[in-house]
Amino acid sequence: MRVNSKDYRTIWMEGGSVFLIEQNLLPFEFKIVELKTCVESCNAIKTMLVRGAIAIEAAAGYAMAQAFMEAPRDDKGEYVDRAKKNIESTRPTARNLFYAVDRVYNAGRKSDNPVSAVVAAVGEMVEESVVATRRIGEIGAELIRDGMKIETHCNAGWLACVDWGTALSPMYMAHRAGKKIFVYVDETRPRGQGARLTAWELNNEGVPHKIIPDNAGAYLMSKNEVDFMIVGADRIATNGDTANKIGTLEKAIVAKKYGVPFYIAAPLSTFDLNCKTGTDIKIEERGEDEVLYQVGVDDQGALRKVLVCSPGSRAINPGFDVTPADLITGIITEKGIVRASREEIKKLFV
Amino acid sequence: MRVNSKDYRTIWMEGGSVFLIEQNLLPFEFKIVELKTCVESCNAIKTMLVRGAIAIEAAAGYAMAQAFMEAPRDDKGEYVDRAKKNIESTRPTARNLFYAVDRVYNAGRKSDNPVSAVVAAVGEMVEESVVATRRIGEIGAELIRDGMKIETHCNAGWLACVDWGTALSPMYMAHRAGKKIFVYVDETRPRGQGARLTAWELNNEGVPHKIIPDNAGAYLMSKNEVDFMIVGADRIATNGDTANKIGTLEKAIVAKKYGVPFYIAAPLSTFDLNCKTGTDIKIEERGEDEVLYQVGVDDQGALRKVLVCSPGSRAINPGFDVTPADLITGIITEKGIVRASREEIKKLFV
Repeated sequence: MRVNSKDYRTIWMEGGSVFLIEQNLLPFEFKIVELKTCVESCNAIKTMLVRGAIAIEAAAGYAMAQAFMEAPRDDKGEYVDRAKKNIESTRPTARNLFYAVDRVYNAGRKSDNPVSAVVAAVGEMVEESVVATRRIGEIGAELIRDGMKIETHCNAGWLACVDWGTALSPMYMAHRAGKKIFVYVDETRPRGQGARLTAWELNNEGVPHKIIPDNAGAYLMSKNEVDFMIVGADRIATNGDTANKIGTLEKAIVAKKYGVPFYIAAPLSTFDLNCKTGTDIKIEERGEDEVLYQVGVDDQGALRKVLVCSPGSRAINPGFDVTPADLITGIITEKGIVRASREEIKKLFV
Repeated sequence: MRVNSKDYRTIWMEGGSVFLIEQNLLPFEFKIVELKTCVESCNAIKTMLVRGAIAIEAAAGYAMAQAFMEAPRDDKGEYVDRAKKNIESTRPTARNLFYAVDRVYNAGRKSDNPVSAVVAAVGEMVEESVVATRRIGEIGAELIRDGMKIETHCNAGWLACVDWGTALSPMYMAHRAGKKIFVYVDETRPRGQGARLTAWELNNEGVPHKIIPDNAGAYLMSKNEVDFMIVGADRIATNGDTANKIGTLEKAIVAKKYGVPFYIAAPLSTFDLNCKTGTDIKIEERGEDEVLYQVGVDDQGALRKVLVCSPGSRAINPGFDVTPADLITGIITEKGIVRASREEIKKLFV
């Protein structure tokens, strides 16, 4: 996708180096980081220079490939095995990370020419994810009519993937196809991924949009200002219950009340086949400082952290919520759009 | 109410001076401002050192009284009339302001001893509002059971009145009566009146509470963590439709979904008898900067304004929304609790 009119991915490999967009600095600074070794790539994952399941998947795969490249000629496999453990310890709860490491590791182990095998394997894996998110865009764009006003929550754009994104991919496709769309971007407190990342992406792609306080969703829907809502997902249970950024549940309830179609966009890798319903999904409680403080740039362009709450008060900061299947109009996947039901979701995996 | 264990009102008069709490500096600095003349009081209203309908009512009444005190002995009434016009021009859409100015002005004009007449009139008016908000607290507290967890939105506390508050008054009464309560304070983006003012008030009164992102309301209600919700009102139509801070509508919808009782607390002066339904209420669109920037204090204690959004993106900032009567469980007034219906509201005014 475009940054200052130039095409980028969030992460890629050139020679033995991994390059990625430093997401902690966005939207205030656009910076590419070069990670020359597997250890550097592990640190980048650990310190969250890269975020989003699909982007982490790519980062872990590239890191695994780097280990094969770095391994001494006389290595009996210990170097690579130790690197595998290191990568796996960076974000031990990220499912896609383990998937990526295994896939690249197995390709290398099975081959007589491990370096070219891992480079091919990670390239193939990353391309699959790009194709899947592009396909989500093509399929989802068919739901978007010319002139539609679409609301989205958090950032489910290409910054959370390698390219295209999930919830934003249909909007990019519709926009590039010449449909006039307008996007209401929920700012998405407390971390503001909507106001910071989604707005930044839409700016760079030239998609008309405005940021709204999370509080304004119901007001706009009550005024018939929202035709459609698409959000991403962190995890989807086999009955269609969907965990996503805090506030998604609230929007789904309000959308239902006003008859606004409410869609989830996610690749098949987001479905957790071990998870029967939303009650199986544990919600992460995050640090209070995300609520109590805000980070932004002052008029000199310097990054600053300021307290925005009454000193001495504490906060509660649940990271996610679970939207029950009956509030979801449909789920847009790379294999088509399904209703959020056990029967339809099952068909995706046969 | 208490600040650092000492009792205060938001505004009061001593001799010819009006004193008020400088609300723009809260919660980071507690400062009392002395306004020595009617002109100074007008400026304080205009620059919003004082906010909230009932607090503005008091400020306007005190300013009118100051004009009578300042008038030259040989004045034929021109000084006071000119002052009246000045006060009325400070916040021309604030209904309570005109009510207060007329009441004090008429008392002065009718009396042979205008100065003592206006001092008595404004004192009586302010006492009435204090009694009304205290009565709202007593009546509303009967709804609050020991151990209840209560959510509130924005600041409808004593800072928006002269004392006690509207939505917060029942909580203060319940707390002082020894009931154990816990308050979830919606941070209330974009201006953060919950995180800043409500949390500050609750801190000073020692009421247990935590600040939550506005996005977390539905999540907490879905987990049965909220027993009760009370908010204030900016204007109530005669059918019970209620305008209040943006986000109130969203909370009312979510509360209905989860069966959480949703109450409005407001004095009779908040009912607009010329307003038949919520569609008659015009919603103020406020400046974008409230969304794009945040003001807070840095680690040196200095107030700073920082950009928290993607540079170049615009925002939409509706100040209020209208909650339809059918989402409101009841309205707590100084004359009792009524359902949000035309019949019951009519009874309040006979």
